[in-house]
Amino acid sequence: MIAQQPPMGWNSWDCYGAAVTEAQVKQNADYMAAHLAPFGWEYVVVDIQWAQPTAINHRYEPFSDLCMDEYGRLIPAENRFPSAAGGKGFKPLADYIHGLGLKFGIHIMRGMPRMAAHRHLPILGGEYNCAEAANPHSVCAWNPDMYGLLCEKPAARAYYDSIFRLYAEWGVDFVKCDDIAREYPHCKLEIETISAACRSCGRDIVLSLSPGPAPLEQAEHLKKWANMWRITDDFWDDWKLLKGMFERAEKWCVHAGPGHWPDADMLPVGALRQCDNPKDWTRFTQAEQRTMMTLWCMMRSPLMIGGEMTKNDDFTLSLLTRGEVLQIQRSGRGAHPLRTTEEESVWVAGRKEDTGLYVALFNLSDRQRRVRVSFEDLEFRPRQARSLWTGETRRVPASAASLSAVLPAHDAAVYLLEG
Amino acid sequence: MIAQQPPMGWNSWDCYGAAVTEAQVKQNADYMAAHLAPFGWEYVVVDIQWAQPTAINHRYEPFSDLCMDEYGRLIPAENRFPSAAGGKGFKPLADYIHGLGLKFGIHIMRGMPRMAAHRHLPILGGEYNCAEAANPHSVCAWNPDMYGLLCEKPAARAYYDSIFRLYAEWGVDFVKCDDIAREYPHCKLEIETISAACRSCGRDIVLSLSPGPAPLEQAEHLKKWANMWRITDDFWDDWKLLKGMFERAEKWCVHAGPGHWPDADMLPVGALRQCDNPKDWTRFTQAEQRTMMTLWCMMRSPLMIGGEMTKNDDFTLSLLTRGEVLQIQRSGRGAHPLRTTEEESVWVAGRKEDTGLYVALFNLSDRQRRVRVSFEDLEFRPRQARSLWTGETRRVPASAASLSAVLPAHDAAVYLLEG
Amino acid sequence: MIAQQPPMGWNSWDCYGAAVTEAQVKQNADYMAAHLAPFGWEYVVVDIQWAQPTAINHRYEPFSDLCMDEYGRLIPAENRFPSAAGGKGFKPLADYIHGLGLKFGIHIMRGMPRMAAHRHLPILGGEYNCAEAANPHSVCAWNPDMYGLLCEKPAARAYYDSIFRLYAEWGVDFVKCDDIAREYPHCKLEIETISAACRSCGRDIVLSLSPGPAPLEQAEHLKKWANMWRITDDFWDDWKLLKGMFERAEKWCVHAGPGHWPDADMLPVGALRQCDNPKDWTRFTQAEQRTMMTLWCMMRSPLMIGGEMTKNDDFTLSLLTRGEVLQIQRSGRGAHPLRTTEEESVWVAGRKEDTGLYVALFNLSDRQRRVRVSFEDLEFRPRQARSLWTGETRRVPASAASLSAVLPAHDAAVYLLEG
Amino acid sequence: MIAQQPPMGWNSWDCYGAAVTEAQVKQNADYMAAHLAPFGWEYVVVDIQWAQPTAINHRYEPFSDLCMDEYGRLIPAENRFPSAAGGKGFKPLADYIHGLGLKFGIHIMRGMPRMAAHRHLPILGGEYNCAEAANPHSVCAWNPDMYGLLCEKPAARAYYDSIFRLYAEWGVDFVKCDDIAREYPHCKLEIETISAACRSCGRDIVLSLSPGPAPLEQAEHLKKWANMWRITDDFWDDWKLLKGMFERAEKWCVHAGPGHWPDADMLPVGALRQCDNPKDWTRFTQAEQRTMMTLWCMMRSPLMIGGEMTKNDDFTLSLLTRGEVLQIQRSGRGAHPLRTTEEESVWVAGRKEDTGLYVALFNLSDRQRRVRVSFEDLEFRPRQARSLWTGETRRVPASAASLSAVLPAHDAAVYLLEG
Repeated sequence: MIAQQPPMGWNSWDCYGAAVTEAQVKQNADYMAAHLAPFGWEYVVVDIQWAQPTAINHRYEPFSDLCMDEYGRLIPAENRFPSAAGGKGFKPLADYIHGLGLKFGIHIMRGMPRMAAHRHLPILGGEYNCAEAANPHSVCAWNPDMYGLLCEKPAARAYYDSIFRLYAEWGVDFVKCDDIAREYPHCKLEIETISAACRSCGRDIVLSLSPGPAPLEQAEHLKKWANMWRITDDFWDDWKLLKGMFERAEKWCVHAGPGHWPDADMLPVGALRQCDNPKDWTRFTQAEQRTMMTLWCMMRSPLMIGGEMTKNDDFTLSLLTRGEVLQIQRSGRGAHPLRTTEEESVWVAGRKEDTGLYVALFNLSDRQRRVRVSFEDLEFRPRQARSLWTGETRRVPASAASLSAVLPAHDAAVYLLEG
Repeated sequence: MIAQQPPMGWNSWDCYGAAVTEAQVKQNADYMAAHLAPFGWEYVVVDIQWAQPTAINHRYEPFSDLCMDEYGRLIPAENRFPSAAGGKGFKPLADYIHGLGLKFGIHIMRGMPRMAAHRHLPILGGEYNCAEAANPHSVCAWNPDMYGLLCEKPAARAYYDSIFRLYAEWGVDFVKCDDIAREYPHCKLEIETISAACRSCGRDIVLSLSPGPAPLEQAEHLKKWANMWRITDDFWDDWKLLKGMFERAEKWCVHAGPGHWPDADMLPVGALRQCDNPKDWTRFTQAEQRTMMTLWCMMRSPLMIGGEMTKNDDFTLSLLTRGEVLQIQRSGRGAHPLRTTEEESVWVAGRKEDTGLYVALFNLSDRQRRVRVSFEDLEFRPRQARSLWTGETRRVPASAASLSAVLPAHDAAVYLLEG
Repeated sequence: MIAQQPPMGWNSWDCYGAAVTEAQVKQNADYMAAHLAPFGWEYVVVDIQWAQPTAINHRYEPFSDLCMDEYGRLIPAENRFPSAAGGKGFKPLADYIHGLGLKFGIHIMRGMPRMAAHRHLPILGGEYNCAEAANPHSVCAWNPDMYGLLCEKPAARAYYDSIFRLYAEWGVDFVKCDDIAREYPHCKLEIETISAACRSCGRDIVLSLSPGPAPLEQAEHLKKWANMWRITDDFWDDWKLLKGMFERAEKWCVHAGPGHWPDADMLPVGALRQCDNPKDWTRFTQAEQRTMMTLWCMMRSPLMIGGEMTKNDDFTLSLLTRGEVLQIQRSGRGAHPLRTTEEESVWVAGRKEDTGLYVALFNLSDRQRRVRVSFEDLEFRPRQARSLWTGETRRVPASAASLSAVLPAHDAAVYLLEG
Repeated sequence: MIAQQPPMGWNSWDCYGAAVTEAQVKQNADYMAAHLAPFGWEYVVVDIQWAQPTAINHRYEPFSDLCMDEYGRLIPAENRFPSAAGGKGFKPLADYIHGLGLKFGIHIMRGMPRMAAHRHLPILGGEYNCAEAANPHSVCAWNPDMYGLLCEKPAARAYYDSIFRLYAEWGVDFVKCDDIAREYPHCKLEIETISAACRSCGRDIVLSLSPGPAPLEQAEHLKKWANMWRITDDFWDDWKLLKGMFERAEKWCVHAGPGHWPDADMLPVGALRQCDNPKDWTRFTQAEQRTMMTLWCMMRSPLMIGGEMTKNDDFTLSLLTRGEVLQIQRSGRGAHPLRTTEEESVWVAGRKEDTGLYVALFNLSDRQRRVRVSFEDLEFRPRQARSLWTGETRRVPASAASLSAVLPAHDAAVYLLEG
C-alpha cells in the first residue's frame, strides 16, 4: 500500500515559492539525509512552476512561456534545473535524491499548459491532440498557466496517462496535484482521472491533492482516490491559522487511515520566504511550534517541512527530531479531541500495538494556564505518565484524579499514559 | 459523575405515545427488572403529556387542560397515574421502580404551562409570578402546551429551580427535556438555566435533550450542559432513517464520552404503537435490528428501548441481552468509521482496558454482499476473531490479509479481534 | 369601489402608541373636521390595544387581560373608551366621527385573543368554539395577545365573520389588520379569509395590512385581497428610513391603482410620542417633510398623519393642506423614477385627465445641490412650469433644455409642467 | 442623444448563428431598406464570431484560430466577408449598408483574443502589450475565445480604446457587447471602461450589453453606462419564455427611457436557424407573435428581428409593419401592468404628447378567454377605442364600465383609448 503511514518530507514552497533551483533542492536533500532521515523524513518535493524559466518568488506571471515537450508535457526549466538539459527532465535529480536514500516529489497543476491546446500539439500516442482534451472554460482562479481537461473524453485520459508515464520514467515518488482538492463538484471526474493515471503508470507514486479546504462531505471520495488532501487553505506562521486548525482537525480526524491522510499543510518552521529575504524566519514562537507538531502528530497529518533546512537552528532541529512525538503519528489510533474551547483543547489517542493512551494538552489562550483532564474523562487510570517533549516520566499516585500541566500561552504538552 | 456510561433503559413513547398509564409503566418496569437488568438496562422513562388527563395516542391536543399545582408546576394526571392522588406526584411510582432496583425518568417540555402564565400563578418561593417568567412569543412548533421562559430574568430561574426541586422530591433520576436540543441559538441560555437547575436540585438527575438534530457546531456547549442529546429527528422503524444514521454517527462519534453522549434515539423494536393498534410490531427486519444495535453500541449511543417489553418475542429479547455486543458500548474507545459508502460501512473501535479491536461490518445495500476490511486498513493483524452476535471464535491464519463476512441485505456483523 | 383613491387620514400610533383614549381620538377628529377635511383627509383610526385597560405607551404587556365579549371578540376597554360602556363597543365613537363628516377606523391583530381559545368560548352562531379555530403554534413575534387561526377550518371562518359583523354593527369604515402583511407564505390563506369576512360583512370597510415589508412577489395577491399594505417596516422620523423609501417606492410604484395601494406608512409629523413626552416633536427637518410628502404623493401612497394634530404648528398644517401637492396623489398616473442615485432622485408622473407632467426633484445628499432633469429625458418640452410647493409659475424659454432647482440638503421640489 | 428611441433592427444570430456571411447580411439589409425602413427599422447587426473562418452554426469551437491584426484586434474572416480583404475590415460592408440609408452594427465579446495575450502583441499606440491588459483568470463560461481585461490598468483602457477606434473607422453604429451584462459585480469596471471607450471613439455608437438577465439592482449603473441591456437569458420561440417575460417586463418597465432601454431580446419570427435547416420556421403561433410584439412595444424594448427576412411570409411582414403598434413604443409613457396573473395580463401606458391611453389585453392561458379591464381600474373613461392590430375604431357607450376582448389562447389585443 502506498502511504501506509502519513508521508513526511520537505517541500520547497514556504522558503522558495515558485523559484526553487536544483542546487537548493539538493542542499536540502543532503541535509535531510544527514540529519532527519533516521526519524522518518523521506520526501523531497519540488513545488510549483518548475517549468517556468522566469519565476523569481511566490508570485505567478501571466502568459509566461513554459517549457514543454512536443507532446505538451511540462519539463523542468533548464536554467533552474541544469541536469534536465538534453531532455533528461527530472531523472537526474530524482536519481541524486534516490542515491541519498530519499524519495522525490513534484508539484503539478490540474490540466495542461494553455499553449499546448492553442498550438494543437499531439498527445503522446498520436491518437489525439491537446485541443481535444482541454476545456477552455476551466481555468484556475489564481494561477495563469493551465486549462483543465474534459475528462469525459478519451483525449483527456490519454493526456494524463502521458504525463504520469513521464513522471514514472523520471523516477517520481510523490505528486502534489494542485487546483483540485477544493474544486468539488466540478473536478470530481478530473480527480478520478488523474488518480487512475497515477495508479496505472507503473510506479508507486503518492498522490497529494491541493489546495484546501477540501469539502468534508467528499471524505469518502477523497479516501478512495487520493493518498492525502489538504483540509485547509495555505497554512502559514500565524497563530490564528494554527488555532483554527483545531476545528478542522476535529472534523477530519476520523478519516485518517492507511493510504488516505487529511493534510494540515506544511510546517512553516525555521528559515522561510528565502526568495524574498534570506533573513526571514518563522513568526511562530517555540510554544506554537510545539503545539503545531503535537496536533499534526496526534491527528496523523502528513508532515512536510517548509523551511530552508540548512539554516535550521538547534530548536528547529530538535523539534523535527523528537522521535517520541513523531512516534504518535506512527502508532496512534482513533485520535480525537475530548474537548476544545476558546481557551484549551485536550486530545486523546489509543495506541495501535499496546494499551495506554496518548494525551495532548493545548493552551489555546493568550496567557499561562493550567490545562487539566480527569481520568474519569479519559476512562483510564494511568500508573505512569511520560511527557514526550521533555522525556520525563513520573508515577501517577493512586490518589490522583487527573492529569494537568501549567502551559505558557499557545504551548502544548503530550503524554504517554500507561496503566 | 452522572452518566459515566451511556444510559440504558426504556421509554414509553414508541409504544404508548402521549397516553401511557401507571399500570403500563409498572409492567414494563417489572419486565426490565426480571429480564434485562443484569445486562445493564436500568432507566424507566415516562414520556410526554403525563399531566394531560385526555391524552389517547401520539397526537397532541390544543388547549387541553393540564394538571398543575398552585405554583404552575405540572403534576401527573390522576386518572392515568392513580398513585399520584393526594398531591403525591410521581413519588409513589418512583418508589416502586426504585424498589425494583431500577431508576425512574420523566419527560418535560421546555417552559411552563401557558395557563400558569395567563393565570399569573405564583412561583414557589413567592418572589415572582409565572407571568414574569414566561415568554409569550416562545412557543413550540409541534406541541401546544407551554411557553418558553425569559431566562435572563430571575423569575425564570426560580421557576426552573422550582420544578427540579419537585422532581428531586419525587425521586426522579432522569429528565428528558424536549423542544430544546435543536432550538439553537435562541435556546442556548434556556439550556444552561435548565441544566443549572438540574445540577443544583439536590439529586443526581441525568439531563437528556430533545428533539434532534442538535447542531454539530454546538457540540462543546452540549457536552458542557447536558448528559445526552439527540443527533436526529425522531427515529422510527424505517430503513431510510437507519441508513441515514451512519452519516450522523460519523459526525458525532468523536464527541461521545463520560457524562456526555450523542443520542441516536430510541430503539423501535418489538411491539410498537400499542395505543393505536395492540398488534403493531416493528417494521425492521431482524437484520436491520442487528445493524441498529451494532451501530448504537459502536458509537456509544444511549440505548432506550421503545417497544412494549412484555410482548417481546425471543428474538427481541435476545437482541437486547446480547452481552458481548452491549459490552462494546461500555468498553469501546475512539470508535469511528473506516469508510461508509452507499453499499457498506466499516467501523472500528479500540478497547479501553485491553489491546485488540472491535470491528463492525455493515451491509447497507439491498442485497447480500461480502463486506471486507483489510488488516492493512485496520493497522492490526489479529490472531483470532470472535463474532459477537454469534459467539463463534475463529483463528486468523497468518496468511490472511483481511476480515470479511457475507451479510444479508441490511445486516451487520461485529467482531472482537485479538492479537 | 372601496379605496378608489389612496386613503387619507390620521392614526393614533405615532403619538399615543398602544394607549390612546376616546378623548384624544375625538379631539383629533374635531381638528381634522375643522382644518383638514376640505383637503381630502377623512379617516380617523384607533390603533392597537384598544381592548387593553392597562396600556400606557408604545410597549406591549404580556398576559394582560383584554376585554372581550362572550364570543371571544375584543371590545374597547371602558376605562379608555367610556362611551363603549353597556356593550356599545365603538358604535358611539363611530357615530361621533361620522357626525363630523369623517370615517372611523380601528386596528386589529390577526387571530383571536389567546384566552378565548383557552377558555373554549363559543363562536357567534353557536356551531363552533374558539379552541377549534385557534392555532396554538401561530403567535405574533412582537405582540403577546393573539393566536392566529387555522383558516382551513370552518371555525376560523366563522370567527372572522363574527368580528367583522361586529365592526359593521359599530360602523367601522377602515380596518388595519396587523401581524400579517409580511407573514407570507404561511398567512396567505389567513389574508384571504379575513378579506372575505371583510367584504361580506355588509358594510364598506377598507382593509389595510401591516406590518411591512410585504413581499414584492406577492403583489398580485395583495392587490386582489387588500386595499393597502405596508411596503416597509415601521416608518419613523429618521432620514435613513426616508432615504430608504425611494428604493421601496421604485419597486412598488407600478402596483398602485384604484382599490389597491402600496403603503409607505404613517407621516411622523408634528407632535409625536405624546404618551412618553408631551413635548416631543418630529425629528424631521422641514425639508425632509417636503421630501416625504412629495414622494408619498408621487407614488400615490395612502397618507396617514401620525402626530397629535391639535398641536400642529403653522408649518405642519401648511404641509398637510398644500392642495396642489396632494392633488398629485389624486390625479397622477404611471409615476416612476427617472433615476435614483445616492445623491438625488427624479420622479415623473403623467396626469389622468390632461396632458402635462408632474416632475419631482429630490436632493438626497447632505448638502445643497442643484438637481436637474433634461427635457430629452422627460421626453417632453414644457412651455411653463408651476412649482407646487411655492405656487410660483414660470415660463420655460424655448432655448431651455432642462428643468433644475437648487435644493437644500434632503429637500424636494415638485412641478407641474405644461406644454 | 444616442438611442433617444429604443433601437429597431435585425440581428443575424437567430437565423445564422455564429456563421453569417456578407452575402446574407447584404440580402437582409436590402430587404430592410425595401420593406421595413419606413416603419423605423434601421440597424443591421452582424452577430458573434465574424472573426472565425471556420464557424458553421450556433456552436463555438474551442481553440479556433481567429483573424486579428497586428494589435490583437479581431478583424472579419475574409472567407466569410470578402470585402474585408486587404485590411479593409467591415468598412466596405458598413458603407454598403449606410448607402441603403441604414445603420451597421457588430457583436463583440468582452476582452481580447487569448492568443493576442499569449503572443504578447503590442496594443495600438505602442505603450503597452496585450499580455499586460489581459486577465488570465477571466474567461467566458460559454465562449472559448477571449480573456477579460484588467480594467484598473491603463493597458486595458488602451486596448478598448484601440478597438473602438477601429470600429469608428469602419463606420460602426451599434456594438452589442457580450459576456458582460449579467457578470456583475466583477465586470462593473469593465462595463465602464468599454462604455468610456465607446463614447470617446469619435462616432455615435449605440452600446448594447448581453447576455441577460442583467441584475435589477444594477439598474442605475446600466442606465448610466449603456444604451440597452438584456433583461433575460437568450429568448427563443418558446411560449414558456414569452410568458415568463411578463414578470421581467414588470420589474424593468420603470427603467425604460431615452438613451437607456431594458432589452427583451430578439424577435424570433419567420425563418430561424437557417444554418441548421433552411426550412426551419418560428414555432410561435401568430397569436403568440402578436403578444410578443405588443408586450415589447408597450414596455418600449428595443426591437431586433431574428429571422431571415427575405423569407418573410405575409403574416410576418404584416407583424413587423403594423405602424400603429410600433408607434406605442415611440409615443408611450409610463407603461406598466395593471395586473398579471397566470391567466391574463393587462398593461397600460400614457401618451407622451396627448391625452388618452394605450391599453393592452393579454390572454396568457391555454384556451380562449375574455380579458376585461374596468374603466375604474384604468381611472379613465374613454369615448372611443381603436384596436391597433385590427385598425377598427368603435365608440364606447356612456353606459359601458369596462373594455374587454375575447382572445384566443396566448393572443393579445391593444387599444388606443381616447376621451
